[in-house]
Amino acid sequence: MSPQTGPPFGARLEQARRAMSVAGTDVLLLSLGADLPWLSGYEAMPLERLTMLVVPAAGTPVLVVPQLEAPRVMARPDVFTVRPWAESEDPVGLVATLVGGAVTTRAGRRPVLGVSDRTWATFVLRLQSLLPGFDWEVSSQVCAPLRAVKDDEEVATLARAAAAADRVAVALLSGEIALIGRTEREVSAEVRRRLLAEGHERANFSIVASGPNSASPHHEPTGRVIGRGEPVVCDFGGTLDGYCSDMTRTVVTGEPSAELRRVYETVAEAQRAGVAAATVGTACQEVDRAARRVIEEAGYGRYFVHRTGHGIGLEEHEGPYMVEGNTEVLRTGHAFSVEPGIYVPGEHGVRIEDIVVACEDGPRALNVADHSLVVVEA
Amino acid sequence: MSPQTGPPFGARLEQARRAMSVAGTDVLLLSLGADLPWLSGYEAMPLERLTMLVVPAAGTPVLVVPQLEAPRVMARPDVFTVRPWAESEDPVGLVATLVGGAVTTRAGRRPVLGVSDRTWATFVLRLQSLLPGFDWEVSSQVCAPLRAVKDDEEVATLARAAAAADRVAVALLSGEIALIGRTEREVSAEVRRRLLAEGHERANFSIVASGPNSASPHHEPTGRVIGRGEPVVCDFGGTLDGYCSDMTRTVVTGEPSAELRRVYETVAEAQRAGVAAATVGTACQEVDRAARRVIEEAGYGRYFVHRTGHGIGLEEHEGPYMVEGNTEVLRTGHAFSVEPGIYVPGEHGVRIEDIVVACEDGPRALNVADHSLVVVEA
Repeated sequence: MSPQTGPPFGARLEQARRAMSVAGTDVLLLSLGADLPWLSGYEAMPLERLTMLVVPAAGTPVLVVPQLEAPRVMARPDVFTVRPWAESEDPVGLVATLVGGAVTTRAGRRPVLGVSDRTWATFVLRLQSLLPGFDWEVSSQVCAPLRAVKDDEEVATLARAAAAADRVAVALLSGEIALIGRTEREVSAEVRRRLLAEGHERANFSIVASGPNSASPHHEPTGRVIGRGEPVVCDFGGTLDGYCSDMTRTVVTGEPSAELRRVYETVAEAQRAGVAAATVGTACQEVDRAARRVIEEAGYGRYFVHRTGHGIGLEEHEGPYMVEGNTEVLRTGHAFSVEPGIYVPGEHGVRIEDIVVACEDGPRALNVADHSLVVVEA
Repeated sequence: MSPQTGPPFGARLEQARRAMSVAGTDVLLLSLGADLPWLSGYEAMPLERLTMLVVPAAGTPVLVVPQLEAPRVMARPDVFTVRPWAESEDPVGLVATLVGGAVTTRAGRRPVLGVSDRTWATFVLRLQSLLPGFDWEVSSQVCAPLRAVKDDEEVATLARAAAAADRVAVALLSGEIALIGRTEREVSAEVRRRLLAEGHERANFSIVASGPNSASPHHEPTGRVIGRGEPVVCDFGGTLDGYCSDMTRTVVTGEPSAELRRVYETVAEAQRAGVAAATVGTACQEVDRAARRVIEEAGYGRYFVHRTGHGIGLEEHEGPYMVEGNTEVLRTGHAFSVEPGIYVPGEHGVRIEDIVVACEDGPRALNVADHSLVVVEA
């Protein structure tokens, strides 16, 4: 987000309204998640006090926001007006009234409201009780395809976030971050600190999974002390200028077994194959298939228990998803992870992950830290 | 949570089922938020892959969890069984099937499902489409009153979290954390680091609001450089052994104006009055009134724009709320914040916050860092 220009919120609103018209969505109700900051620059706090942008098909959107958060709202008079609510007011009733005023119910068709995917159930249920004549869908049906295509500024920001994460990865691979004799939790905390030190405004997650724990893809770091000759899966990311980083490297603390080495090389080859397949015009599921084929042919198919990747941007996980069944075609500006893994329960696991952008001239990996098997002795 | 005994999940399940029976709730569907960890010890990850505990009125609850997170689940055979779902399965359909198998629709009454307050809209809407004959409510209607009353172990954990936050507050009040010449963002990052260093497993938030920014109660730390003679509102908290800390101190960087001193003393007196009012048997709104009265009588009533407090436990904000209109009566073991403030737009703001537990022998403040006006020179 260059301070000279800033994100093109006005143009995004126009895009969203064209998509609403095509989808038959009458009003967007944007709360938690990234549709709201993508459209307005403002991010709702995940609190029991409702923040919601009411976006009708025409007319200026209205941001309903708790009075005590209103001073944080940067005015965007071209995009929305602000309606703060006091502690004694009912914000859900306020939103319902705004919706009622914006929608002309047409004969023979129930009006459709698109609510942010992550809006809390407590607000959805209360809105539904106040707006019984409406059909509901998630706002991502309108916004996700628009958000998935990153413009040049957004790609540049994702690249800065990836470079910051890469510097943490280099510290891991070089042995600068000690592993042996420390607990997973200690290493995880150091990775979080370094994500911040490298320029992220937020450290979002830091998986450190050692030894047999590496076979758990979403392992929660424990007090387990890291030993010698073990794989350590480190999967971490943060937010930098609003955009997410997310990368994984697996290092080994001392000479690995022949079997672990074979697993590693298989994952590395699968990861290269996934990236190579990620060309503009290719269906997302083909990226998954390209990576999976390598792992299946090596005989580890049943140990690759997750999809190959997810889109990334303002959110860690967003469209497009690199998963079997997703026939959506990659477009220029799609940004996503390629992260195959092999997880043998009770034994070991390996994952390698980069963020990749589909570009006119081929896939561009934003993460460049070493992919080869690195043995650290510290 | 003593490692000898652990939380009494079995007893909590019984409590919840008695409350379900009273409320007429047929099945609880627990996902994001604290009802799930309170009942099971397992916390759902805020991801697009659904995790949901299906709790019928009778029979063993079933935890529907992504396969790649299943290795993280600690078995609680007395409380729930685990049903991992693979990437190619539809977890929402799985939950709907479990609900259908558990509920005997009785004549003349639509069955009622209680879904976690923070469940994402995307899951609520899809569940509703698969379960059209059901009424929906939030699970907090069943669980919140139970969770609000902390047992001795929980109070002890909240006290440890408060003590860790207090140590960070002491570093602020003693000048150990430098303020003058640094940006709000730098100080905020240091506070987060210290929350972790003092024993929190997670730093949840760290508001640093200086000079005129202090008039914004939920200010997002900026690049503003802190100057001399300014109020700096520092409101921070983390999670320690699963339970939250949350406290606020306002320090002044050099001799304050007489007006700022008067504002400070008013807030401090209001905070004392709020704590003193928080006795077992008192309605929550009386705590708010006691604090508000002091501020109103000093002529600042219109500048106290939020409620006086919120419950705290596994979540930063939970019941009971210290707010006008809440006639709920304080019970032994209720834990909550008392945090009045005065915010004069464009000028300055002051807030002081402690966590307090209602005990048989009177209110017990868990935070004890100095409440008097502290002038720091660094």
